[in-house]
Order: sequence, then structure tokens, then C-alpha cells
Amino acid sequence: MNQTDGTPVWFMRQAGRYLPEYLEARGSRDVLALSRDPEVVVEITLQPLRRFDADAAILFSDIMVPLAAAGVDVRIEPGVGPVVGDPFRAPDDLSRIGPFDSAEHAPYVSEAIRLLVKELPVPLIGFAGAPFTLASYLIEGGPSRDHRRTKRLMRDEPSFWVRLMDRLSEMALSHLRSQVEAGAAAVQLFDSWAGALDPESYRRHALPWSRRILEGLADLDVPRIHFGVGTGELLPAMREAGAEVVGVDWRVPLDVAWERIGDGGAIQGNLDPTACLGSWEACEREALAVLERAGGRPGHIFNLGHGVLPETPPDNLARLVDLVHERTAR
Amino acid sequence: MNQTDGTPVWFMRQAGRYLPEYLEARGSRDVLALSRDPEVVVEITLQPLRRFDADAAILFSDIMVPLAAAGVDVRIEPGVGPVVGDPFRAPDDLSRIGPFDSAEHAPYVSEAIRLLVKELPVPLIGFAGAPFTLASYLIEGGPSRDHRRTKRLMRDEPSFWVRLMDRLSEMALSHLRSQVEAGAAAVQLFDSWAGALDPESYRRHALPWSRRILEGLADLDVPRIHFGVGTGELLPAMREAGAEVVGVDWRVPLDVAWERIGDGGAIQGNLDPTACLGSWEACEREALAVLERAGGRPGHIFNLGHGVLPETPPDNLARLVDLVHERTAR
Repeated sequence: MNQTDGTPVWFMRQAGRYLPEYLEARGSRDVLALSRDPEVVVEITLQPLRRFDADAAILFSDIMVPLAAAGVDVRIEPGVGPVVGDPFRAPDDLSRIGPFDSAEHAPYVSEAIRLLVKELPVPLIGFAGAPFTLASYLIEGGPSRDHRRTKRLMRDEPSFWVRLMDRLSEMALSHLRSQVEAGAAAVQLFDSWAGALDPESYRRHALPWSRRILEGLADLDVPRIHFGVGTGELLPAMREAGAEVVGVDWRVPLDVAWERIGDGGAIQGNLDPTACLGSWEACEREALAVLERAGGRPGHIFNLGHGVLPETPPDNLARLVDLVHERTAR
Repeated sequence: MNQTDGTPVWFMRQAGRYLPEYLEARGSRDVLALSRDPEVVVEITLQPLRRFDADAAILFSDIMVPLAAAGVDVRIEPGVGPVVGDPFRAPDDLSRIGPFDSAEHAPYVSEAIRLLVKELPVPLIGFAGAPFTLASYLIEGGPSRDHRRTKRLMRDEPSFWVRLMDRLSEMALSHLRSQVEAGAAAVQLFDSWAGALDPESYRRHALPWSRRILEGLADLDVPRIHFGVGTGELLPAMREAGAEVVGVDWRVPLDVAWERIGDGGAIQGNLDPTACLGSWEACEREALAVLERAGGRPGHIFNLGHGVLPETPPDNLARLVDLVHERTAR
């Protein structure tokens, strides 16, 4: 993170659909196509920083980029999310994931990062999807309310599950290492749907592979952020996986989350993104409640509890950045 | 609950689509139409009890029944959930909720209950939707991933919100009272989506109305169950609202949930419904883990952490009932 005087702040999906300039840059292309065009990635990644003084940029990309680069039939539908053309249901489906070495199969990502770090006044955060979340998209075929096929498969077909998770963790590790080598100053592992698991199932069926990724980055000496939604009960495990920073959504009060993570950890979050949709007064009130729970402790990175929603007025985020900086200036 | 020797067990949505005899009884009618036909309600409510020795029956109905009876344009789409034809967006929309007195406007519910209690060998649980969850359906127009319009409205339009919540809590109270008067031996207040709120917002914007309902039932002297999904951080508040029993999903380990609720409370849950989708071995393993965390404490009602999924093999539930009874026999 940037060395600011107070609490640093950035927003998940700060480069995105709530910005009219993003919609213009996007045109009719989908996120995966945009992600393969380094110049447009640079432009979109920089857009929010022209509007507010965030303390970090997050690479514009998508967690499905490596799978798409490895030949999986996936597209990102606006307002829906990743959709996999032919969902994975049997071990043979694994053969549809081709080879993936990030430098070779997704060179446009490193290229965009190299261009970005030349222009950026703040650190760049790279990211990848965690194996459980990626497995859910592959198996369900898209976003899922209950991940029912994924969970059934993980319980009843352990050898298929292990092979899939092995593969997905290798891909994520390659992808994150090459992002850091190209200049990313921190990484975030997005396990968006891990919160659908009870803690025992998380430890058995997801954690080992997230740990493999996070520990595989240890020698690169960059902060590792581990994030999921609805993970109140998983926080100790997510920290143990090898993360300096654990990201939390708004469901857990920040001070409660911090207790669960332990004092040595840093914490990222956790304003409800819906609090930014309406009046500034409501947004400010909720943001101050987050700051109060953080209590000025070092190691708090202010963020939303999930990505910026498309209907968010950009001015609310600009005022929010200023509010956090003003209230936490030391 | 029934006076069994061991831990009582029933399943949310135990009368439902996973049973072929339910699909046959349903024909092409939707859930709301079925709910208005006492004879079919009796048949469907009894169906699971012919397959396994559950310790309670739950009335076959839907949380949207009172709103439909009050003239709101709502339908239940299979695989989707409640869909409101013309979502509520402005205070004037409140006029579209007509009068609702359960005995007068939904007499078929009491009628079905009177018929049922004559036939049932076990207690019948009545239910209603809690105001926050109902408000979300009315405002979003259907199931929602993030309840963004609902939360914006609750924060920015307090007078509209209060009027809507007042109205919904009056309806739920009338509906639950008349169910108990007709013979229901316990009630469950379903606040399925309360877990989308952080604890402060829950206490400010949802809890007061759930409390009004639960406290309004106190004189009837029946157990009150208060249930939501993803409510790990809300459990103390949900108990304080006036519930003898708090229902929890699978995300919180049962013993952790019990600590949060406090020793005086009873707890219902909390097997992941997806654990019942595949092999009996997986289902058994996960169920035994729940029982172990319950530790044989009195006041545990075994249930799933959410409703039975449509792909569930009925035999898994039958074996589950026997397992719970065998393992907890005193």
C-alpha cells in the first residue's frame, strides 16, 4: 500500500461501469476482450485516479482471464458475470483447460502492468481468482445462489476435485507471479464465493489450494490480500492461508473481524457498497461507523465490502476518499 | 416441538419439489394457487410425513401469501422465487397493499390448518415472512443478490421505509396469530435476507418490526422460531427480538452460534442443504458433524440451514431423520 499519513483507501472495481468514461472506453467489447488490450487496460485502470486520490490502483482485468487464455469457453455477461459455455461435470472436462503460463498465454497482462507502473503515482494491485470461486463458475456454468453442483462434486468426487483445484491453483500462482514480476506492488486473491462454505468444508476443500498460491508468492515479498464475501466465520483460516491482509465484507463489524484475524494481521474493508448508492449523508454516516470501529489502528485499509455497484454516483466515492484521508490524517 | 426422546428433526421446505408426489399434486398450478386450496395444502403438507418420521410438519404455503391476498401483483416462478409485477419505488405504491386481516382475506390458510391438525401425528409449524425480506421482494421486484434498491431506500427514505415496515409487520402478525388460533403449535418468522445487513443496519432498519411481530405473539404461548440465512453476526439481535428458537444456516458452526445466542436459547439447524444432494456417506458425515457440535444439549432442533433443494434424493432425508433419532436417543 501507499505510504500515506493516514488510512489508505481504494475500492474494489473502482475502474468500472459506474464511470461514464469507462462505458465510453469499453464500447461494445466485453471485459475479456478489453483485458487483452494493454492500452485500454491502462486507460481504464487510470480513470478512477483522475477523479479521486485513491492510494492504490487495481489492474483492470477479470478473474476469468487465465481460464479464457487456457482455452475455456467463457464470456462475461454484463449484469450477470462469468458464464461458461459448457460447464464442467466430469473428469474428462479437465482436458478443456489448455496449458497456461501467464507470460506465454496472457502476455497482454504483464504488458499492461509494465505500461501502467510507468504512469501510476500509486502502487498497482494485481489479482487472481481463488480456486474455489473459479471451480464454482466452471461447474455451475455461471454465478450460483447455492453452488449446489460444486459442493456436491467436492464432497463426492474427491479425485476430480483435487485435480481441478490443483490445476486452478497452478494457474493462479503463475498469473500472480508474473503480475508481480511486471511491477504489481501487491496482490489480491479473490475467493468471492468462499463464504458459501462452512468452516470445516472450507478448510478441507478450499484452503489448501489458496494456501499453495499465497505461500508460493512469499519470496516475492509483496503484501498479499485475501478476500471473500460472507466470510465472517472463515477469517482465521483465510489469514492462516498466508495473507498479510484479510478483506472483509460489511456483514462483520470491522472490530469483530479484527479480533478473529488476530492482532498481527491487517484488514481491508468494509463499507457496504449499497451505502454509496444514494445520498452523501447516508454514505458518510456509514463510512464514519467503519472508521470508528477501525479506531485509527495501523493496518486498516479502507475499502468497500465488495465491488463498486454500477449505479454508484462517482462523486460519492471521491468524497469518501477525502473523508477517510481527513479523518485519519496523523 | 414434539416431545421426542432425542433431538427433534424437521426440514425447511420438507413439502416441496424434491418429492415426485408433490409435483403430481401441484400439476400446473403455482404455489400461490395451491396455497389457496385447503385440500391440496393438507395433502402436500402430509406428504413428507408419509416418507419419514419428522417431529413436526410445516404448513405448505408461501411467505408472499398475505401480500397476494392483499392485492399485490405477485407470482412465484419455479426456480426463481417471488416476482412482483410492478416493484415498489415510491410512497404511493403503498396504496397497492389492500386491507389484510388473515381470517377475512386468507381464510383458506386457517381452514387448511384446522383440517391438518385433525390428521397430523406431530405438531404443525405456521410461518410468515419477516418485514425486511418481504420489503426486499416488493422493492427489488424479485430475488436480489445485493438488495441495492431496498437498502438505498431504507437509508434515504425513512418515512416511506417506516410506513412499509409498519404495514408488513401488521400483516405478518395478523397472519401468524390466526395460524396459531387455528391450531399451529409453533411459528417461524422467515427473515431469509436479513443476513444481507450489517448488524447496526439490522438493528436500526429491520429488528424493531420483527420484534413487534414476535412480541405480539407472546400471549399465545407457542414457541417462536426466528430464521435467516447468513446471519452469523445477527444472532444475538435475532434472539433479542423475542424468539425462543433461533434458526441458523450452515455457515456458523452450531456451537459458535449457540455461544452467540446465549445459553437460554434453543437453536435450529444447521446442515448445509447441499450435503443432502449426493451420496448418503457425505450426508451422514456432515450430519454427524452437526450433532457433534450440538453435543446432545437439550434445545437443539435438527434442521437444514436453508430449504430442501429440489434435486435432493428423498431417501437421504428419510435416513437423516433416522440417524438423528438414533444418535440422540436418550
